[in-house]
Amino acid sequence: MRVLVIGAGLIGTSIALALKAQGREVFLSDSNSDALRTGLDKSGASSWSDGSVVNLVVVATPPSTVADVVRTAAHQHPNAIITDVASVKGAIFAALAEESDDVLSRIVGGHPMAGREVSGASAAQSNLFVDRPWVITRTSHTSDAACAAVHELATTLGAVPIERSVEEHDQAVALISHTPQVLASVLASRLVGAPQSHVDLAGQGIRDTIRIAGSDSALWSDILASNAHEVAHQVSQVAASLSAIAAALESGDKQAVTDILMLGSQGQKKLPGKHGAQVRQDAIVVVRLEDKPGELARLFGAAAQADVNLEDVRIDHSLGRMTGLVELTVSQAVAKQLEDSLIAQGFVVIA
Amino acid sequence: MRVLVIGAGLIGTSIALALKAQGREVFLSDSNSDALRTGLDKSGASSWSDGSVVNLVVVATPPSTVADVVRTAAHQHPNAIITDVASVKGAIFAALAEESDDVLSRIVGGHPMAGREVSGASAAQSNLFVDRPWVITRTSHTSDAACAAVHELATTLGAVPIERSVEEHDQAVALISHTPQVLASVLASRLVGAPQSHVDLAGQGIRDTIRIAGSDSALWSDILASNAHEVAHQVSQVAASLSAIAAALESGDKQAVTDILMLGSQGQKKLPGKHGAQVRQDAIVVVRLEDKPGELARLFGAAAQADVNLEDVRIDHSLGRMTGLVELTVSQAVAKQLEDSLIAQGFVVIA
Repeated sequence: MRVLVIGAGLIGTSIALALKAQGREVFLSDSNSDALRTGLDKSGASSWSDGSVVNLVVVATPPSTVADVVRTAAHQHPNAIITDVASVKGAIFAALAEESDDVLSRIVGGHPMAGREVSGASAAQSNLFVDRPWVITRTSHTSDAACAAVHELATTLGAVPIERSVEEHDQAVALISHTPQVLASVLASRLVGAPQSHVDLAGQGIRDTIRIAGSDSALWSDILASNAHEVAHQVSQVAASLSAIAAALESGDKQAVTDILMLGSQGQKKLPGKHGAQVRQDAIVVVRLEDKPGELARLFGAAAQADVNLEDVRIDHSLGRMTGLVELTVSQAVAKQLEDSLIAQGFVVIA
Repeated sequence: MRVLVIGAGLIGTSIALALKAQGREVFLSDSNSDALRTGLDKSGASSWSDGSVVNLVVVATPPSTVADVVRTAAHQHPNAIITDVASVKGAIFAALAEESDDVLSRIVGGHPMAGREVSGASAAQSNLFVDRPWVITRTSHTSDAACAAVHELATTLGAVPIERSVEEHDQAVALISHTPQVLASVLASRLVGAPQSHVDLAGQGIRDTIRIAGSDSALWSDILASNAHEVAHQVSQVAASLSAIAAALESGDKQAVTDILMLGSQGQKKLPGKHGAQVRQDAIVVVRLEDKPGELARLFGAAAQADVNLEDVRIDHSLGRMTGLVELTVSQAVAKQLEDSLIAQGFVVIA
C-alpha cells in the first residue's frame, strides 16, 4: 500500500506518521509550504512529486475544501482509492454526485473520531487513532475493494472501523456531537453577561456541561454549516422542549418537569461505557484523599496492587480547584475487593 | 456552641459527624426513627430530647419542608440561631415573611454546595464540606450575631463561607446549577428515541455535557420548582438562542453561528479554576499511557517525583472505555519540568 496524504495538519500528519511507523510508503502534500515542511519533519513521509504512483489518497484538508480536493485527486490518480477524514459526509457526496461511476466507485468517506483540543502538524502523534471509532461511509457506487482499503487503513492505525450510511453518520453526529456543541456554547455564552459573583459559585456540574464550549469557533462554525439541516432539526427540538419546561415551571406543572428529568436520566444510561448497557455491572468507589503530595500516586499504586482494572477515573472539583474526592469506576464484581484493599492500605472509602 | 441538627440525611448527618469530630456538643433529630438511628450511630451525636438548650439549629430536611421546620424551630428555641441547608432560598424567606422581627433576626439561610450522587445518613462523612463554598444569605432583619454563628459553623466544617443576598443566590444557582441540569436532561432525553447505532458513536463531548442528567429526578424536580421563576427565565433565554441558531443554520448565516460559538468560548473562560481568570497561567500536559496494568500508578508516581502540584487530571474516553490519554493540568511555570521528568521516565508526552 502506497499512500498519499493531502493536508499536513494534525490528522493528516498523524496518519502519515502512523503509517511510516508501520513501514508503509507514505507521501505528504500541502498547499502551504511551511505546514508541509513541519509535517514532513514530524512524520518522516516523503514529499509528493508528480508521477509517484499511489494506491490510496487520504484527503485531510479543511472541511470546506474536501469535496474539491477529493474530485481533483480522483482524476489525478485514476487507479487509486480516495478517502477523506471530514466530520460531515453528506455535503461532500452531494458535491460529487455528477462524477462518473468509475470515480464514485473509488471514493469512500471516512471519519476518524479522534480530534484533540490541539491542532497542527507539530501536535501529530502516531497513536492518535488507537481504540477510536473510524466511521466509514459507503454509497451504492462504492466498490468493495475501496471499502476494504479504508477498513485496512483504519485497523492499521489501531482504530475501530464502523460502517454507517452517509445519512446515518450525519444524523448521528448531529445528535451526539454537533448539538451538544451548540448547547454547551449557548449555555456558556450566558456566563458572559452574568456577574462574576454568580459565576464564582460554579461547581463541577456546569464545568462538565460546558467543557466543549472551549473548542475552536471557526472550525466548529464550518462543521455546523456543513451539517446545517440535521443540526437545525435537533437544536429546534431541544429549543421546543426547553420552552415547554419554562412554561411548566411558570405554571407549576411539576409532573411535566419530573417527566423530562426522568427521560434524561434514561437517555444518559444509553451512552456506551460506564453509564450504559455495555458495562451495566459497573460500580463506583469514592475515595477521599488527604491533601498531601503524592496521594494520587499512592491511590493508583494501591489500586494496581489490588489487581483491579479501572474503567474510569473522575476527580472532583470545587472553587476551581481539585478536591480530594476521586471516583474509581470498576466492574461490580471487583468493587468489594478494591474497597477492602484500599481500606487496608489506609484510604478513606466513602461509597 | 451546642447544636441541634434536624434531619438525618446525608447533609445533616455529615454536619453532626463533623461537629462531633471537632468536639462540639451535637443533637440530632429526625421524624423517621430508622433514619435517626442510622444518623446517631454514624455521627455519634446525642438524640434530641425536649428541654435540651441549644445555641444553633441546623435544618437539613427535604426542600419543601424547610420553611415550616425553620418556623417551628425558631419558636421552640427562642434563644437559638436557626439556619438551613436548602439549595434555594427565596421561597423559604417568602414563607417566613410574616414572622416577628425577633424571629427573623435569628434566621440565616445557608447553602453548603457539597451534594454527592449518594444520599442518606450511611453515606455521611465529616469532610464533605472541606474546601466547598457555603453560601450564607442574610436579609435586612438578620442580626450580625446570627450571621457570625453560621460563618463559624461553615469554617468549623472546613467550608468557605460566601455571603450573597437571597436574590443573588437564587439567580446565581439558576444560572450555574439549575439551568445546566435542565439542559443536560433535555439533551439526554433526545437519546431515548435515537437508534443505538447513533448513540454508539458518542464520545467524551456529549458524555461530559449530559453527565448530570443522571441526577435524582424527584429531588431536582423539587429544587427547580422552588426556583421556578428564575430558572424559567434562564431556560427561556437559552431556548430563544437555540431557535435563533437553528434559523441561522437553515438560512446559511454562518456569522451568527460563529458569534455564538465565540461568545460561548468567552463565557467558559469565566469559570473559576483551570479554565479561567484565577489560574490563567495553567498548562496542560497530555500523556499517552500504554495499556498495561499499573500505568496510572506509574504516571502519578512520576508526577509526584517531579515534585509538581497537579491542578487537574482528566482521562479521555472513547467507545465507552478509558483510553490511554491522560491530561495533567499544572501551572505554566512547572509544565516544562513535568514534561522533561515524564519523558526521562519513559512516558510519551504529546502536547
